[in-house]
Amino acid sequence: MVQSQDIEQPISSRRELRELVRSQLQTFLEQGQLQEAKLLLVPVQAVDVADVIGELPEKLHAIAFRLLPKDEATEVYEYLDRSVQQSLLQDFKNQEIRDLVEQMSPDDRARLFDELPAKVVRQLLPNLSPTEREATSLLLGYQPDTAGRIMTPEYISLKEHLTVSAALERIRHLAEVTETVYALYVTDAARHLTGILSLRDLVVAQPEQTIGEILTRDAVFVHTDTDQEDVARVIQRYDFLAVPVVDSEQRLVGIVTVDDVIDVFERETTEDIYALGGVQSDGENYFQMSLFRVSRQRVSWLLILLVTNVLTSAVIRANEGVLSQLVSLAMFIPLLIGTGGNVGTQSSTVIIRGLNIDKIQTGGAWRLIRREAIAGLMLGTMLGLLVAVGAYLLQGNLIVALSAGSSLIVIAMLASTSGAALPILFKSLGFDPALMSAPFITTCVDVLGVLTYFTIARILLGVLPLEMSLG
Amino acid sequence: MVQSQDIEQPISSRRELRELVRSQLQTFLEQGQLQEAKLLLVPVQAVDVADVIGELPEKLHAIAFRLLPKDEATEVYEYLDRSVQQSLLQDFKNQEIRDLVEQMSPDDRARLFDELPAKVVRQLLPNLSPTEREATSLLLGYQPDTAGRIMTPEYISLKEHLTVSAALERIRHLAEVTETVYALYVTDAARHLTGILSLRDLVVAQPEQTIGEILTRDAVFVHTDTDQEDVARVIQRYDFLAVPVVDSEQRLVGIVTVDDVIDVFERETTEDIYALGGVQSDGENYFQMSLFRVSRQRVSWLLILLVTNVLTSAVIRANEGVLSQLVSLAMFIPLLIGTGGNVGTQSSTVIIRGLNIDKIQTGGAWRLIRREAIAGLMLGTMLGLLVAVGAYLLQGNLIVALSAGSSLIVIAMLASTSGAALPILFKSLGFDPALMSAPFITTCVDVLGVLTYFTIARILLGVLPLEMSLG
Repeated sequence: MVQSQDIEQPISSRRELRELVRSQLQTFLEQGQLQEAKLLLVPVQAVDVADVIGELPEKLHAIAFRLLPKDEATEVYEYLDRSVQQSLLQDFKNQEIRDLVEQMSPDDRARLFDELPAKVVRQLLPNLSPTEREATSLLLGYQPDTAGRIMTPEYISLKEHLTVSAALERIRHLAEVTETVYALYVTDAARHLTGILSLRDLVVAQPEQTIGEILTRDAVFVHTDTDQEDVARVIQRYDFLAVPVVDSEQRLVGIVTVDDVIDVFERETTEDIYALGGVQSDGENYFQMSLFRVSRQRVSWLLILLVTNVLTSAVIRANEGVLSQLVSLAMFIPLLIGTGGNVGTQSSTVIIRGLNIDKIQTGGAWRLIRREAIAGLMLGTMLGLLVAVGAYLLQGNLIVALSAGSSLIVIAMLASTSGAALPILFKSLGFDPALMSAPFITTCVDVLGVLTYFTIARILLGVLPLEMSLG
Repeated sequence: MVQSQDIEQPISSRRELRELVRSQLQTFLEQGQLQEAKLLLVPVQAVDVADVIGELPEKLHAIAFRLLPKDEATEVYEYLDRSVQQSLLQDFKNQEIRDLVEQMSPDDRARLFDELPAKVVRQLLPNLSPTEREATSLLLGYQPDTAGRIMTPEYISLKEHLTVSAALERIRHLAEVTETVYALYVTDAARHLTGILSLRDLVVAQPEQTIGEILTRDAVFVHTDTDQEDVARVIQRYDFLAVPVVDSEQRLVGIVTVDDVIDVFERETTEDIYALGGVQSDGENYFQMSLFRVSRQRVSWLLILLVTNVLTSAVIRANEGVLSQLVSLAMFIPLLIGTGGNVGTQSSTVIIRGLNIDKIQTGGAWRLIRREAIAGLMLGTMLGLLVAVGAYLLQGNLIVALSAGSSLIVIAMLASTSGAALPILFKSLGFDPALMSAPFITTCVDVLGVLTYFTIARILLGVLPLEMSLG
């Protein structure tokens, strides 16, 4: 029912349908109508069931989950949020947990274990069957965010002497337990990767040909310690469905599939964006964190920036003499540092994004920085003229107008240049360029901007006749 | 040669290898050693060849491209940057262009035509063969950034009465000309989508079964006018390799494949990030734009923000009386609005990202905004106390210290609240939430922050004995 309505609706209302299922399910569960609840979920896709369960009140999670047929339960479990997965584990009897964890795919299981308390993992691991235990321990041994950690050891490997029809027979047998049947891997006796082929190649070939005749020997692969973002870039670049992962002795140990890659990109991009906004990120869902943790993740950057801002205060303090001579100078401080910050934000945003998605290399750094400097100069000149004329018309003080306008040119150029140069510098030193993000650059520009402004004002006050400073 | 070195190197040095090939190729071309140049490119993957050609000096593009065997040329052409594609077209003879464009896949061709001058497209379209012309005109008729525009009409459709072995035979014939053989679509006589199956299903089934017996009827699909980002979300959500696209009469007209989805996510994310940084984006590569266009894309936001900043100036001007009474108040203006801006940037960054990747819905808006308000209050209290104590120790003026500290609490809370509320408001009005991005919120907080600061200072000056205002 739900499903067939589902497909006739545009995407936007699928969410509403899910909400409908959720509220109906909650009613059934609260009234103890378990059979009706069970039937309601039958036609719903596993990923949607996981969402519906996740949105139920926490006390209903376990009972809703138990309604699922055994084979579907594992799939739904893999789609649940980590927090729901963990809370469910506490409600289960030992045997239930064993069955569930046993049937998860090794890469999903490794990710779950990774976040469980070590004590719970030590309890669970010995209960797994020997093969599953080995697969999981293997994955857990690799560093987080590497190919080793996100790969699955469930791939199909073939030998060169096999005929096409024998290979198809083997695939038929393994189709149920393997992650993909479309990318196939050829290994020698010592499990070294000797080539790849696709199911497409196999289907197109003659039945009596051997794998050795039709494989592609120049396979692109990654190592277990390759960063997950680089793995994702390889799959994106070559339009692969999967990429093989080899260990330090070039033995095939797993594959990473394209569906994991999309999630890797999303997680990595969220981290990049958080860094741009000055929020630390450890991969956890911000919206499920406690307020205490939210504050802790945000306060460190704020404190660093606060210290930098104290420098700006010191600069103003040092110029209090000029300021008390000409109080209206204060009027344009926020405008100058605000505009400088905005210009710097623009530059650092495009440069950091370019570095993060490999659109620019640090090799062409000078050209890029010069380009941003010129853009800053152009923008600054435009805005500076506008501000100078506007300021004079508004309050008729030539010294203030000239100081604001000319310092804006300098500030925009400084902001644009440092917005480009600092991320590139950081990248070439091996740090994350996003550390030199908008908030940091904005705050640095504050110091330099105020210094420039007062220096120019001080010079003009010395040069121009005093009456010009009267409004 | 290149290839086999290639696979034994970690990913990071593949770029260096590409650079090696490029410099060698350039030398060969400049010395007229065309045969050597041709051999050099034989083992290199198409996507890498495209990069190498793109990095050559422009005058060598056409000659390098002509070295490629005809069947590889099309694939390489599809991978080239749009700007290189366009410049190549100008160098080619009519027949060459016709052959090339004829062999491109319809979705890539539509994207190329989309960016060519209308005059050139009118020249090229009539030269295509009738089927290819129809396929391209079809795609060009859909709105940009919709499923219709990114889909390919080259999929495999089957009928329900076919046996599995007949279907496999059909796939064998079509494998060369279709985009994917892994996702298969079942249609009735009127081309309505009646179900889907995968090559995996087909391989696992018995040869004499019919398609009607093994297909999945509840297929998830999208419409031609579905936004490309929603299409990408569907594929991501269900881990699909492809999703079918139907027209308004539910007839199957194309499919979108997972490799296109990764590129859609990257383009959409770049747009999101640019919007966060206050840079307009029309999908073109920022690093290939002229400086004039760069300035034009950046100046509009800067001007809007400048106008908002003039309000801040007006607030300060209105408070010049207070300021001249107590000049050192100016000292903390940048610190207060800077910190407020940073707190607001953090909130708007996480909220906008959450809205963009559908992690949060506008439904739970009040809870989210309240949460951010509380986080802002906590952060503001912490920072405010620090600033009050620091300011007093630094310059011993109680009124300035109290004004700065207490207004920071208000500012942080205002910034955090508006950083959450404005993007949510914009989203619920149907606008892009990123329009309410960091630069805009920072600038709004400037106005409110300065107003708060002076209001508090004015009150304290009225209440506290005058000698407290002396340093």
